[in-house]
Parts: sequence; structure tokens; C-alpha cells
Amino acid sequence: MASLSPYQRKHKVTVVGSGNWGTAIAKIVAECAASNDSVFEKDVQMWVHEEKVEIPKNSRHYNPSSPLCQGPQNLTDIINQTHENVKYLSGVALPSNLHANPSVVDAVKDSTILVFNLPHQFIIRTCEQIKGKILPYARGISCIKGVDVRESGISLFSETIGNILGIYCGALSGANIANEVAREKWSESSIAYDPPHLDSKAPSKGPSPTGTPSASTTDLAEFEHRDVSGQMSKTKLQALPSDYPPIDHNTLKLLFHRPYFHIRVVHDVAGVSLGGALKNVVALAAGWVEGMGWGDNAKAAIMRVGLLEMVKFGEMFFGNTINTRTFTEESAGVADMITSCAAGRNFRCAKLSIERKQPISKVEETELNGQSLQGTLTAIEVNSFLKRQGSEEEFPLLTAVYRVLQGSMAVEDIPSYIER
Amino acid sequence: MASLSPYQRKHKVTVVGSGNWGTAIAKIVAECAASNDSVFEKDVQMWVHEEKVEIPKNSRHYNPSSPLCQGPQNLTDIINQTHENVKYLSGVALPSNLHANPSVVDAVKDSTILVFNLPHQFIIRTCEQIKGKILPYARGISCIKGVDVRESGISLFSETIGNILGIYCGALSGANIANEVAREKWSESSIAYDPPHLDSKAPSKGPSPTGTPSASTTDLAEFEHRDVSGQMSKTKLQALPSDYPPIDHNTLKLLFHRPYFHIRVVHDVAGVSLGGALKNVVALAAGWVEGMGWGDNAKAAIMRVGLLEMVKFGEMFFGNTINTRTFTEESAGVADMITSCAAGRNFRCAKLSIERKQPISKVEETELNGQSLQGTLTAIEVNSFLKRQGSEEEFPLLTAVYRVLQGSMAVEDIPSYIER
Repeated sequence: MASLSPYQRKHKVTVVGSGNWGTAIAKIVAECAASNDSVFEKDVQMWVHEEKVEIPKNSRHYNPSSPLCQGPQNLTDIINQTHENVKYLSGVALPSNLHANPSVVDAVKDSTILVFNLPHQFIIRTCEQIKGKILPYARGISCIKGVDVRESGISLFSETIGNILGIYCGALSGANIANEVAREKWSESSIAYDPPHLDSKAPSKGPSPTGTPSASTTDLAEFEHRDVSGQMSKTKLQALPSDYPPIDHNTLKLLFHRPYFHIRVVHDVAGVSLGGALKNVVALAAGWVEGMGWGDNAKAAIMRVGLLEMVKFGEMFFGNTINTRTFTEESAGVADMITSCAAGRNFRCAKLSIERKQPISKVEETELNGQSLQGTLTAIEVNSFLKRQGSEEEFPLLTAVYRVLQGSMAVEDIPSYIER
Repeated sequence: MASLSPYQRKHKVTVVGSGNWGTAIAKIVAECAASNDSVFEKDVQMWVHEEKVEIPKNSRHYNPSSPLCQGPQNLTDIINQTHENVKYLSGVALPSNLHANPSVVDAVKDSTILVFNLPHQFIIRTCEQIKGKILPYARGISCIKGVDVRESGISLFSETIGNILGIYCGALSGANIANEVAREKWSESSIAYDPPHLDSKAPSKGPSPTGTPSASTTDLAEFEHRDVSGQMSKTKLQALPSDYPPIDHNTLKLLFHRPYFHIRVVHDVAGVSLGGALKNVVALAAGWVEGMGWGDNAKAAIMRVGLLEMVKFGEMFFGNTINTRTFTEESAGVADMITSCAAGRNFRCAKLSIERKQPISKVEETELNGQSLQGTLTAIEVNSFLKRQGSEEEFPLLTAVYRVLQGSMAVEDIPSYIER
């Protein structure tokens, strides 16, 4: 198929991150690159934070005579030889065109598409490491769920990445439990991507630089987005050279859509990102209600009010940069909330905290192996933001969850408090 | 409190129907009438289709020396003496101001508010029995879930009732599993009520007829609604005499809202009714997906697409008489769909049909004691309507459910068929 493409160059793709969800997404991207090799280079890089790992004895790769099984080995070597991330996604075969790379700088070199999928506390550090070492016209997709809420404002992780690197970055989010996606159980996801109109030029429009990438100054556009503190700022965006296929909604669908992973591409980056944050707060309330034994009607009521408050939050604080239908129509909205309230970890820990009559922080300790719940953190951050805006009363469910966490409201009081 | 009311008369309320859901609603209405006795007569009538029932030996009302326990007794006598519907809602204490009446004509006599809550196949017969024997200015609320879909068109049960009786009838629907509501587990519900503006007169506006109810011809308004075949027709509506409190959204909230049963009153009768019908079709698909073991992401995807198709169905076929936000914001929309896809009988039977590798009609026979599933019927009716409209392809989930029921599509093919 390569000869059919009117473009002289192909996109090189790198996945930055290799945890449970990072590896699952890298598997999808590598599968898509292999089957769309007129648009993408077949080989996909995955940055792996190097660590020493032993192949467990119950692994299908365990073979006492293999050099790989003589004590702890580099995780990258194991992945590249066994095509399995035995530590973070064991039991799932990875495509052979996916290459684990312990150097993030080497992994992103010459890549036009960077897929970010790592815990959010590592975003800034990792971006600082590769700043100035990526193609200036690269584009990013952030698969990091949620937003960064501070008292002063809300910033999207995609915008934080874009700001540091000086590139445009979209977002992917949806009703996606990583292990189910990795095992190719059918699900859907949303990609939001809305760069300034720089990349849509047809390649026939004129001679284009080949060889060493370059871009003339006329190929720069300023675009507005929020910075890390939630304030609007401007970044200059460099156009993609026209000998590459454009990075548009079609290209992103080619890169992420699989028969078992259905992608809808939309423009609303804020909506897609916000849904992934607020649903965790809703899931806490759903867990408490289920723990109380109040039944399915009550849980559905919590989810209904949660969806309403998501829409209202978007309308009030993101104004015309958000499409509120994202919450009610896209996988990153209502569907992700439903999944999170059915089986997510925030839901489960909240439910256990009622059943065991323990504070949720105690459940977190015993159930999550030292990881922390996103929902409790977001609830506190969102509350300090709402307080500063003077809007606590307008978001009774978000406020009630915060107060229950703080011990100033009982779960029994949630229904009357959120009534309207 | 009665002396505070500026109105000379109070509303008499009758609940027509006494099954599981009928009795649960009658309990709520009687509780509300008792606590708002300046607006409502305290005594509430409930029509009971008379039958002979024995009080079971494990009932708390069983007493071998009581006359009520000497063989089968009238269900109305049992209810009026034990304040429990031992047959359809056993174990739940009913308010003593709720009176079971075996005569529907006597039960509805002189009532200004008629609450209909009986299986939909009995609506027409029951309305024909009381036609001309009710107050001409009575108002109705239909608690019957769903709509009547035929190839030729769609009619709302509330409109069928209103047509036959020559009155205005609104609708109540929501995420309400009857046994949970009856046991006062917290839930929400939606009432839709949007009569022509006849009933809003203040009592001070002039002298009003008292004693024998009457209404002058200036108190008639024509209003448009669908008839039984789904066609628009006109009915003359008679104004409520002004010595009654108006029957408006506030009054309906007083009559149905309880601390454990939160009511929101809206105007969109079609949306509230349609949600209750289409969600059963969605729940079948959710049940199949869960039966297949595809996990929570997949089930959330089905629900997302189901919600989208509800909105689209409303937009296409109810045009400007519907508010599509009803589906995404009200209990009768998204919340009822969530409950039905979590625990409803359509969901459960569909799931069992996959697990047991049986046709769903077989599961229906063994699991439902001769009752029939609403979702399978609605799926077939909706499909013949969509076929006639030439719109099958625009509703891929509704169409896929129909085809799986007919055996012309496999459950495995649903994801690719509904992809868009």
C-alpha cells in the first residue's frame, strides 16, 4: 500500500510510558502502524523507565536455561525478546514491531507523533528531559486521565505537555479499563484534537522541504491555551512539513482505531479531559451508596446528578471552549462515568470503606499497594477551586463528596443535600 | 394547616391500580396527602381488581383465630384491615388513610386527581369503564412505563388515557425498582405535566362555582395530542374550578415527593415516556454483552450508544414537542437506563440467554412466571416503525437488538454494526 501514498515521508510514532495502560496503548498503536504502513513507519518506539525484573516462574517465557531467566534482567531486554511486558501487562503478547527503549531522548528522536501515557506526576519531569530534543513540528496525544486542578485554575495535562515542549497536544480518554483493552475486549474511546489550521495543506501545494526537517516562518501560528496555573497563554506552533501526511482526525483514527477499540475523534479537548477527572469524584459517591445497600435506583440517581454537574462545570468554567455534548455523547463522558461507577478503583474503595466502617484512606492503604486514589485528590482540589469561585453550593454532589471525605457530612445526608 | 389555604376545596386523589408498582405509588400518594392536608383530602382511594387471597402462614398478619385467616378472603378486605397488600407488596406497611376499593367507578368518583398505575394491556378497558363517570375537569398522571409503538405511529399511554376520558394526563417515570421504592430506599423520579394554561387562575379572580362542580364554556380549551394510532388530534379540556388549588407542578410535587422519593417536575411528557420504553431495548443489548463476558467497558459503550439513539429518536420523531435534555438530565432518561442495564429484568433475561445458550423467549418462560418481557416486544414494535420510516440504519443499536432477536444477526456482530 505504501506506493499509493502521495506523501514522501511517513510518521514515526513513539509512546512515552509503559505501565499497564501505557503498554496497552502501545500495543494498539503498533498494530495500527503495521497495518497502515503507507502513513506510519512500521516500527514504533516505547519508552520504558528501565528497571531490573525477574521473569516469574509461572510465565510462559520462563525457561531455566535461557539467559533471560538467570536473575533480574533489564525490563527493556525482556520486552524486546519476549514481546511481553511481564511486569505491567503480563500474559499479553505485544506486536514484534513495538520496541522498548530505555532512553526517552532516543525514543522520541525524529518522531512526528508522541503519545504520552505515564503517571501524571512524571509528566513535567519527562517533558523537561526531552524539551528541545524532539522535532519542533511534532504533535502529541496525551492518554493521561484527568486535569490538573488548583485553587487558582484548571489546566489540562495535554496543555501542560504542549506548553513545555512548544507543540500542540490532544487527548485520548474513554471507558477503558486497561486490562480489558489489552485483552482485546471491545471498548470505545474518545480522541480530542483541535490544533490551529496549519497541518491541512495538501502536499501538491508547492515544493516542500525534504531531508532535514525545516519550516519557514510563515508556517508558524500562535495558538492560545491554558498554562500550568490554568491561565491562558500563547504558544507558537510550527507547521508540519507538507511531505508528511497531515496529522488530522483521519490520521489519528488510523493510528488508534482497532476492531476491538473504537475511536471517535472530536474537537473538545477540555471536555474529554474534564470527564476523566470528575467521574472519579462521582464514583466515590456511587461506591458509598452501594456500600450503604441503598440499591440501584439510588446509584443511578448519583450518576445522573454527577453527569449534570459535569455539564455545569464545563459550562461555567470552560465557557465557549467546551462542548457540553461531549459529556453526554462521548465515551470520555457518560460511558467512562458508568464504567468507573461499576468497577473502578475509586468506586471499589469507597464501597469497602462503608462495608468495613473504615476511613477511605485506610482502605486505600490496604487495597492499592501504595498507590493513591485519584478521586479523593480530585475532590479536594475541585473543592478548593469551587470555594475560590464561590460556587460550592452550585455543585452539591461534588461538594458533598468533599465534605464526607473531610468528615463534616455523613453519607446519609447526601440525598437531601443534592436534592434540587 | 388547612385553615391557611385560600381554597375552599381540596383535591380527592385516586390511584387506579394496585400491583407491585401501583401499591408502592399509592403508599407514597397517601403519605403525601396526609402530610399536605390543606391541599388534599386525607383519604386516598386505591382501586383493587378484586380477587380471593389467603394470608400466607409466614405473614405477620397470620393469626389462625382471625376471621381473615379462615380460607381465601377478598384482597380489598385484607388490605383495609391489615394495611398491607399481602399479594403484591408483602411486608410493606401501608398508610391507614389508603383505602382499597373493589369498584373502579366508585373509587374514581369525585376525584380531581387520578393516578393510573396498571399493566398497559388493561388501560383501554379500565378507562372505558370509568368514561363519563369521572369529574370532567379531573387531571391524570400515568405511571405506566413506556409508549405504544405501532407501525403507523407512536402514542403515549398518558395520551391514550387522556383521549378516552377527555381529560389532560401527564406521566411519571424514573429509575424506580418498585420494591426498593416501597422499602423507602432513596430514589428519584420524573413527572412530566404540561396542560394548556387553564388551571393557573388565582381563586381571587372572581366568584367560583362551589357545591356541584361545573365549569362555564369559557373555561374550555382545545389542546392537541396524539391519539391511539399516533396521529395528532384535538380534545377540549375543561378548566378546574377555581375553588380548588391549581393542579400545577408545585401541587404534583406535594403529591409525590417524599424524603426517600425525590421528584423533579418537567414539561416534556413525550421524553419522559419515551425513555421508559427505549431503555428496555438497550437493556437487552447490555445483558447480552455482559453474558458474553465482554466486561464493563463494552457495557458502558452499549449504554452510551443507547442514550445517543434515544436522543436521536426523540429529535427525529417528536420534533419540537420533545426536549432532548430529558434523556440526558432526568431520572426518566439516563438514570432509568442505567438502573435497567444494571438490574432490570430485560437485562437479566438477556444475560441468562447467553449464559444458558437459550433463546430469550425460553428464559422468559422459565424466569418470569408467565409474565412477558417488555424489551423484546418494544424492540419488534420499534423496528416495524423504523422500517416504515426508512430509518433502520440510523438507529444501529435498536436495529441490531431486533435482528439478534430475529436470529438474523449474532451478538458478536453488534460492535461492528453499531460503530460510527
